[in-house]
Amino acid sequence: MWGPPPEGLCPSALHGCLLHIDSKEKAERVLVRVQDLTPEKADQLIWLRARVHTSRAKGKQCFLVLRQQQFNVQALVAVGDRASKQMVKFAANITKESIVDVEASVRKVEQKIESCSQQDVELHIERIFVVSQAEPRLPLQLDDAVRPDTEGEEEGRATVNQDTRLDNRVIDLRTTTSQAVFRLQSGVCQLFRDTLTNKGFVEIQTPKIISAASEGGANVFTVSYFKTSAYLAQSPQLYKQMCICADFEKVFCVGPVFRAEDSNTHRHLTEFVGLDIEMAFNYHYHEVIDSITDTMVQIFKGLRDNFQTEIQTVNKQFPSEPFKFLEPTLRLEYTEGVAMLREAGVEMGDEEDLSTPNEKLLGRLVKEKYDTDFYVLDKYPLAVRPFYTMPDPNNMKYSNSYDMFMRGEEILSGAQRVHDPQLLTERAMHHQIDLEKIKSYIDSFRFGAPPHGGGGIGLERVCMLYLGLHNVRQTSMFPRDPKRLTP
Amino acid sequence: MWGPPPEGLCPSALHGCLLHIDSKEKAERVLVRVQDLTPEKADQLIWLRARVHTSRAKGKQCFLVLRQQQFNVQALVAVGDRASKQMVKFAANITKESIVDVEASVRKVEQKIESCSQQDVELHIERIFVVSQAEPRLPLQLDDAVRPDTEGEEEGRATVNQDTRLDNRVIDLRTTTSQAVFRLQSGVCQLFRDTLTNKGFVEIQTPKIISAASEGGANVFTVSYFKTSAYLAQSPQLYKQMCICADFEKVFCVGPVFRAEDSNTHRHLTEFVGLDIEMAFNYHYHEVIDSITDTMVQIFKGLRDNFQTEIQTVNKQFPSEPFKFLEPTLRLEYTEGVAMLREAGVEMGDEEDLSTPNEKLLGRLVKEKYDTDFYVLDKYPLAVRPFYTMPDPNNMKYSNSYDMFMRGEEILSGAQRVHDPQLLTERAMHHQIDLEKIKSYIDSFRFGAPPHGGGGIGLERVCMLYLGLHNVRQTSMFPRDPKRLTP
Repeated sequence: MWGPPPEGLCPSALHGCLLHIDSKEKAERVLVRVQDLTPEKADQLIWLRARVHTSRAKGKQCFLVLRQQQFNVQALVAVGDRASKQMVKFAANITKESIVDVEASVRKVEQKIESCSQQDVELHIERIFVVSQAEPRLPLQLDDAVRPDTEGEEEGRATVNQDTRLDNRVIDLRTTTSQAVFRLQSGVCQLFRDTLTNKGFVEIQTPKIISAASEGGANVFTVSYFKTSAYLAQSPQLYKQMCICADFEKVFCVGPVFRAEDSNTHRHLTEFVGLDIEMAFNYHYHEVIDSITDTMVQIFKGLRDNFQTEIQTVNKQFPSEPFKFLEPTLRLEYTEGVAMLREAGVEMGDEEDLSTPNEKLLGRLVKEKYDTDFYVLDKYPLAVRPFYTMPDPNNMKYSNSYDMFMRGEEILSGAQRVHDPQLLTERAMHHQIDLEKIKSYIDSFRFGAPPHGGGGIGLERVCMLYLGLHNVRQTSMFPRDPKRLTP
Repeated sequence: MWGPPPEGLCPSALHGCLLHIDSKEKAERVLVRVQDLTPEKADQLIWLRARVHTSRAKGKQCFLVLRQQQFNVQALVAVGDRASKQMVKFAANITKESIVDVEASVRKVEQKIESCSQQDVELHIERIFVVSQAEPRLPLQLDDAVRPDTEGEEEGRATVNQDTRLDNRVIDLRTTTSQAVFRLQSGVCQLFRDTLTNKGFVEIQTPKIISAASEGGANVFTVSYFKTSAYLAQSPQLYKQMCICADFEKVFCVGPVFRAEDSNTHRHLTEFVGLDIEMAFNYHYHEVIDSITDTMVQIFKGLRDNFQTEIQTVNKQFPSEPFKFLEPTLRLEYTEGVAMLREAGVEMGDEEDLSTPNEKLLGRLVKEKYDTDFYVLDKYPLAVRPFYTMPDPNNMKYSNSYDMFMRGEEILSGAQRVHDPQLLTERAMHHQIDLEKIKSYIDSFRFGAPPHGGGGIGLERVCMLYLGLHNVRQTSMFPRDPKRLTP
């Protein structure tokens, strides 16, 4: 079908298939970006590399839409001065998603091309070469993959279900929606780190293979480690606390955390990215809450100010209300939250943990009353928190601990930690934890430890909830759950 | 010994042991930083929280050195107006490494205090409280832990061996040397990401639990995954390549990589932090080399310009020559490297891989000839590289692949990857790899893949070699090797 591939960069040929770019020679050729194709470039002859998004032959012409990420432009091969019949036929036969190099002149158009991002120009192709050829049958169509579910239902048009997307992630990630989601996710990480670095935090790297289960032993993955066994860290908890005991004062880390929980829900993954914070404070753990909430607010502002295109792109497929937050962040005490729930008809005990539906409901009540999608729930019952949580000295039924919520779902859990080895031992015994197994943890506090606290944020949840999405698999590039280990 | 702990923040007491700071009440008290104790603060009454680095009682006085990270200041409790005999005794009994709050007046000193970072002032303590008490017997002394080995040998003074350090990492990390090493490491990560973000790269998060061994199957850790088995990723190779096939164009990631290699050397870890890069290029993989070397140069410059204090602190204990680099980076071809080695008397074949001693030797020869500690060795023999390496089209014995070296040790391995599924299949068969096991890898390239390349950098090695250290465990906070899984 292609005819013999021309040599090298085919300086003389007008169309053909480049074998593959194997760096045989360097080219001086400048490639223009699709997003830079504006009327200012009219009548210029340019080179461009892009994917064939669609192609449609019509008599002596072939119309192509050429795409680079979220940008696309219309292009035309027409029999005439530079293009032969064979070249039109060649262009018409290029499979969708193939990558092509084209030489083309940029032409202003009279009528805006509504279907493309570059609406004011089109390309008149003079040469076209296939750099990488896609197989003719795509496992999913990109246009289907960005269609809102409602539109699919109402108009009887195809949409793509989640497993098909994930099974063919390389193609699904090419959609405008996916590109926007993961560029925004990259932004969240950057904003998180930049904000904390400006506050004097130090980035640390903590080990993921550990010798003892970090938080009790349940839900932990086991690893074969030479002649022994090890575990995958469920959080960097111990290590970030050790860094505080080692005088780093304020630390953060970004890395994978592992939970061997057999939960098949919209918000659980077995491997996710933790954005973790730990800091020494002076006299009150609210200093920690203030640092974390300010960091979250900086992230929200950065996304709002710098990722509007991405947010709107995702909203086209998945409509949602803009994310609202207050400054300073709303902080409610647990008892206040329980009172609001009871007023709404929920029956629950003072020291009972919040169920997921009750968290959701409380999120709605808070939104109605305070008009915010982000808030802190402070002073959780001591009984529902891990043994290393500092009790509330003013009321031993409660603790110096907090969760943070976005759109009614938990994104962070944190607390002041017990930094006194004697109290820590007592609390562990109260929880009937085998002291031998947490000896090295307790020993970390024996040589002077400052009061400290922190928390861990789930990156995928933050992205999901900020964008108003409904499944954490949409914000994990290659999600892992009890049933999915591929791709 | 302490007497009963006073209530809360002990507003009236002059000394004592705070039970623990449990956030019972908020304090308006401002704590000053040690590094801000300069003559401008003379005669001010300030509060300070710091560790007791040393204490020495002498008649009616007690001299303390108070420390915050790399900064320290002399402090004095003397019987007189505000301090009683008991208070001097109390201060003298505070164990080293305990954390104290002191109220003190800042006094200029006539003679510089050479042993402290704050040489022009001392503190006259009026009140002192123990915030967190260290156990009296420290497993290692901080002064011993920063003593250069030579000084230890010559003067017969104690130094601390590596296992003792690592077993007691919480204390070892408090030394000026450790603080400097890991603050510099945090800087390397930040410089890496900032440089790439400025170049238009997108940060990605890749899974660490994978269903099939990513690079052949040797040296991989196995994980129990519910009712099946999985593996720990030996690199993000497949995933960063999938992101390129998914139109992200230029990506990087920072995260743990795992190697189940039973290597007990100064430069191998079973878990280390990979700084990974992958990018599409236009016509020649040297575009990739240029991006990576420029990124390394930006890191070297950033360290040189912003981490001079840290570099000098480390040099005090571990002397080394300043790290030298060229702009643009020196790139040698493999054959040139082999020729230099042969000229120095090494016997080796054209297509033979470099041994570690030969790498070291070549590093010395390159340093002598070109005066650089950083260079690229390009065009490795095809036979010694992985199956997915693009052959050199001009000489099939070689390949479009490269290593980068710092002070003669490899810190990065990279290549142009084969992006054509047919050639990739052929190369895999040539390497006798089971095609079934890499099916999904090969399939990633079936729907249009741009030419691309990249590489993976070992963070700990970069830090070790930049600082001229001799063991990668010095630049891993909590190193993992075949014999060490703790702390």
